[in-house]
Amino acid sequence: MASIDLNSDLGESFGAWRMGDDAAMLGVVSSANIACGFHAGDPTGLLSTLRAAAAAGVAVGAHVSYPDRVGFGRRAMDVAPDDLMADVIYQIGALQALAQVAGTRVSYVKPHGALYNSIAAGGAQAAALITAIRAIDPGLALVGLAGSAILGQARAAGLRVVAEAFADRAYQPTGALVSRRERGAVLHDPDLIAERMVHLIQTGQITAHDGSVVELHADSICVHGDSPGAVAIATRLRERLREEGIIIAPFTH
Amino acid sequence: MASIDLNSDLGESFGAWRMGDDAAMLGVVSSANIACGFHAGDPTGLLSTLRAAAAAGVAVGAHVSYPDRVGFGRRAMDVAPDDLMADVIYQIGALQALAQVAGTRVSYVKPHGALYNSIAAGGAQAAALITAIRAIDPGLALVGLAGSAILGQARAAGLRVVAEAFADRAYQPTGALVSRRERGAVLHDPDLIAERMVHLIQTGQITAHDGSVVELHADSICVHGDSPGAVAIATRLRERLREEGIIIAPFTH
Amino acid sequence: MASIDLNSDLGESFGAWRMGDDAAMLGVVSSANIACGFHAGDPTGLLSTLRAAAAAGVAVGAHVSYPDRVGFGRRAMDVAPDDLMADVIYQIGALQALAQVAGTRVSYVKPHGALYNSIAAGGAQAAALITAIRAIDPGLALVGLAGSAILGQARAAGLRVVAEAFADRAYQPTGALVSRRERGAVLHDPDLIAERMVHLIQTGQITAHDGSVVELHADSICVHGDSPGAVAIATRLRERLREEGIIIAPFTH
Amino acid sequence: MASIDLNSDLGESFGAWRMGDDAAMLGVVSSANIACGFHAGDPTGLLSTLRAAAAAGVAVGAHVSYPDRVGFGRRAMDVAPDDLMADVIYQIGALQALAQVAGTRVSYVKPHGALYNSIAAGGAQAAALITAIRAIDPGLALVGLAGSAILGQARAAGLRVVAEAFADRAYQPTGALVSRRERGAVLHDPDLIAERMVHLIQTGQITAHDGSVVELHADSICVHGDSPGAVAIATRLRERLREEGIIIAPFTH
Repeated sequence: MASIDLNSDLGESFGAWRMGDDAAMLGVVSSANIACGFHAGDPTGLLSTLRAAAAAGVAVGAHVSYPDRVGFGRRAMDVAPDDLMADVIYQIGALQALAQVAGTRVSYVKPHGALYNSIAAGGAQAAALITAIRAIDPGLALVGLAGSAILGQARAAGLRVVAEAFADRAYQPTGALVSRRERGAVLHDPDLIAERMVHLIQTGQITAHDGSVVELHADSICVHGDSPGAVAIATRLRERLREEGIIIAPFTH
Repeated sequence: MASIDLNSDLGESFGAWRMGDDAAMLGVVSSANIACGFHAGDPTGLLSTLRAAAAAGVAVGAHVSYPDRVGFGRRAMDVAPDDLMADVIYQIGALQALAQVAGTRVSYVKPHGALYNSIAAGGAQAAALITAIRAIDPGLALVGLAGSAILGQARAAGLRVVAEAFADRAYQPTGALVSRRERGAVLHDPDLIAERMVHLIQTGQITAHDGSVVELHADSICVHGDSPGAVAIATRLRERLREEGIIIAPFTH
Repeated sequence: MASIDLNSDLGESFGAWRMGDDAAMLGVVSSANIACGFHAGDPTGLLSTLRAAAAAGVAVGAHVSYPDRVGFGRRAMDVAPDDLMADVIYQIGALQALAQVAGTRVSYVKPHGALYNSIAAGGAQAAALITAIRAIDPGLALVGLAGSAILGQARAAGLRVVAEAFADRAYQPTGALVSRRERGAVLHDPDLIAERMVHLIQTGQITAHDGSVVELHADSICVHGDSPGAVAIATRLRERLREEGIIIAPFTH
Repeated sequence: MASIDLNSDLGESFGAWRMGDDAAMLGVVSSANIACGFHAGDPTGLLSTLRAAAAAGVAVGAHVSYPDRVGFGRRAMDVAPDDLMADVIYQIGALQALAQVAGTRVSYVKPHGALYNSIAAGGAQAAALITAIRAIDPGLALVGLAGSAILGQARAAGLRVVAEAFADRAYQPTGALVSRRERGAVLHDPDLIAERMVHLIQTGQITAHDGSVVELHADSICVHGDSPGAVAIATRLRERLREEGIIIAPFTH
């Protein structure tokens, strides 16, 4: 019987500022990528989201980032590999302690924003990230873009890797995402998105923006919860998966 | 045979800014209170100091603080107890992960600066700190001012407590420190300081600034390393302790 | 003909995080207290709000704060007077430059959150704030709580002062606000709030929470815009003032 | 009679952390590039350095940076041009206010660290910087690397530009600096450095690291003060310039 993980970015409020509907999304996803304080997330809010994830039985990952709150971790930074390694260890450790107190544990790592993009092709920052994860806990999985070089690099280093597809993003014929700067990069129709993902899970194929068919293996699907529209898309996807008898379960199980 | 712990604040550099002589102090003390990023300490520098502490066989504690880098954690802040609890968990967790990677582990917690002073008399922030420590690891000891209320509060909650004296500070007849705002609050003569501490360890007594004798039990002595003079004081104290046959060892052993 | 100023806190978004409905409130108020980056407000967002304020003909004030983003400036901090003075100069200067580029100018200063409360009774931090304002531009007015000591202190130092009342807050018989920790501290009925403010403007009297009548002079009324309910209250107040023929105009005119 | 400006980076302490010997360097240079809080500099420290600069008759410039304290502004960041523009306005404004209170004024802008390098070749970030400067005060000069494209771009936009050479750096035959990652990039001999600079001022020529001669026009020479060796180099240069009858004066005069 087919099974898929749904993941989403949570814990992205900061102090008095709210972001996303964590409660709603914890009813939809099976894995929660939780901010670690470098791009978003203050300790009190993180603890609260971790407790809610524990109560909902949702798996928890460390959503590590460059240190850039005002830029929300979305700006590429030329961080030296040694500094990135230490930054990642610091963030994972902080989340591990909060998770433990919340009655859950960190089971994977997903880089956030600009860091996610910078390491997709591999390289020195990717190596630093892998080293950091292995140094803390070689049992932590690494979530990365389906088809990207980082997955092979991490697998070769002995890490478990999880390939993810993005529910609401258009794909290039190469399997890369269409840049957000291009028209049509983001999809908005909940039914269309749900069908694309059902098709991807059932066939391992997704239609690129030029109409060509791309082979893509995905262990997890990333959905967003930062707007009412995004929650509606995620909810529709969950419904369709259930209709198709596809089990939604954390990849960590 | 008498034994005492010597502790000092380390890991207080930040990015390009240096503070203290960590290498020198790791040759003097038996316990290192290591910053956790809230008042000082960036992940790369913390990892480096933790590795040096591991190599030197010096015990490691989490030097947790209010979130105030520009004020170096020295300014009282009206942080809500729940926020303080989460802040402390976050800091300890971050340091635990770095310590593990460095080949050591966090064995105690010492509040820094204004937080140290704010909780000395007990109260809601003290309770939050104790709750945080117990939630992460009830085996972590808490270092506090010898004679202060927090020690009893923590002991009653089941924590191991460590009473510390300050080598270079004048005492009031009550056992409290003379405020830094008063003349004579800080001592500078290495020989005098060493004699006071030897006397304290051997007799459980220290002479207050008015000449009266104060009963004081200390498990650890705090020395500073943030100036050449401070390192000289710590070094002289270490020599005198050895001459007296007093073993310098972590309280955690 | 009676005239009153309405002021509100704007520019409190930060990076990717939104707060308040600046556009709506700029259609209601005559003065905008704009964050300066220490509790909220990134330069890009501040510039945008300043441009909107300029377009709406709304006067601009510097909403200076303690340096505490994660606490949104709501936590008392024991900042040394000299540090507070420099912090205030820094914030006002930054906002002045952005205001100039936006085609407007800073015409007053209002302390935010915990700083507002800390200086209400006067004292060393209040003196530091006054010194900072006078050093930059003695023509800048200072907005403070109607009836509070800081207003007399600032007036004696030669500053123009503006006494403000809070539309949605209950008052004590002394003229102080009822603490938010007490039941009934915050009012929610738009009609009731509007009537209280009309009455205050017309008679110089407000009914305290125990039913007694308090004499209170207000040059400005503070309204909030951080929730749909708050915008509705502000909008209703504006309507009632107009019905009564009370002109809404910046105190700076 | 020949004249040259000497500039140096000052005000780079932060809170409890010291950096550089501002007092010594204010006795050597004619222009002080003063940090604005984004890579270094807290308001109290900046005010103190500005007062010392005013007392020494040294011209003051805003040393604007990417927002990256832990990286000391030395890491390239993909900041959107509109955000960079607002960041620069914010920083200049903050320093202008502090300078005014200190009895001086900001007369030029020099980008710091990674920003300096990123904009040297021109481009969108360079344009944003130029726009920011012009929007605040078109009379502010821009200091940039002698021979770099940004100088032409700024001049074309109507700004006064100041070309600077680096006293202690090796040059490529193209006039670019030898990268710090290469051997021999930084010079250490005070006498050699002083002779190179005297020769540059007198002939408009500097010897590249391969022995070739480079034509270079410099209005200012950048010297460092972040170590005793750096202060010695700057002091020796000043002596040699005086011996040659070359006047050291701010380019702003």
